[in-house]
Amino acid sequence: MPKINLDAIPQANTTGYPPPFDVPVKARWYRRLAPVTGLADFGVTHCVLKPGAWSSQRHWHDGEDEFLVMLSGEAMLIEDDGRHVLRAGDCAAWPKGNTNGHHLINDSAADCAFIVVGGGTRTGGGYSDIDMLFTADSRFVHKDSTPYGTEPK
Amino acid sequence: MPKINLDAIPQANTTGYPPPFDVPVKARWYRRLAPVTGLADFGVTHCVLKPGAWSSQRHWHDGEDEFLVMLSGEAMLIEDDGRHVLRAGDCAAWPKGNTNGHHLINDSAADCAFIVVGGGTRTGGGYSDIDMLFTADSRFVHKDSTPYGTEPK
Repeated sequence: MPKINLDAIPQANTTGYPPPFDVPVKARWYRRLAPVTGLADFGVTHCVLKPGAWSSQRHWHDGEDEFLVMLSGEAMLIEDDGRHVLRAGDCAAWPKGNTNGHHLINDSAADCAFIVVGGGTRTGGGYSDIDMLFTADSRFVHKDSTPYGTEPK
Repeated sequence: MPKINLDAIPQANTTGYPPPFDVPVKARWYRRLAPVTGLADFGVTHCVLKPGAWSSQRHWHDGEDEFLVMLSGEAMLIEDDGRHVLRAGDCAAWPKGNTNGHHLINDSAADCAFIVVGGGTRTGGGYSDIDMLFTADSRFVHKDSTPYGTEPK
């Protein structure tokens, strides 16, 4: 049946970020839901941030729309215009090509959880606060295009 | 900022279903989030079901993937294999082309709310329990293809 047994899907905390950019996402525990359910038109990730964890480096996508809905707990959404609290039921949307980078930080003392949906075509994107871009084939490079030499995410 | 002010988006309860199939969805109050946020790669709907309301007639999509996450309250998910309770944080996925029709019924005494995401290409689909199909251009027809004569949804 199509109800998803989340507990049966292992959580991962891996990242392809080169050091030291990988450190803030070590306590980000995610499950990719599309591969296990047969969804192909968009990607869905269930993500738990432990206290202190970041959802990602602050970023944008050139070719992919992104949508997020908070499920539990509390996180700070960081964007060019500052910080916005997200709580259960709050939603956010980032259309592709908007270079107002975003990420979530769990500044609270408890876990928080959210669902994030991504669609479109991976054509690359950038990071607001660090010298890094991601490419269409998910490599991480400096803003002058020289590679970091790490594996694709 | 990309955090969505849900309260600023009017709720609708309209449907293109021909009578009497429109009756069970009269107390389904939804907000389409993609048009107001600029998302184009997939559709997102925020939906509240009042007690007794259905999310839709039990249906499937031939060409569109669908994903749902419960935000609050409780609903019954009805599928070919029976009934499954959905509560806050529960997720379900319906890959396109799977003719195991689904819908949610709010059998509880309180409102429930969920987010549903749809992607892919509208090529039509069907309804499990009634003599109705929907077409690529969102018209409703009998299973012998004769039209109901109502407006597209």
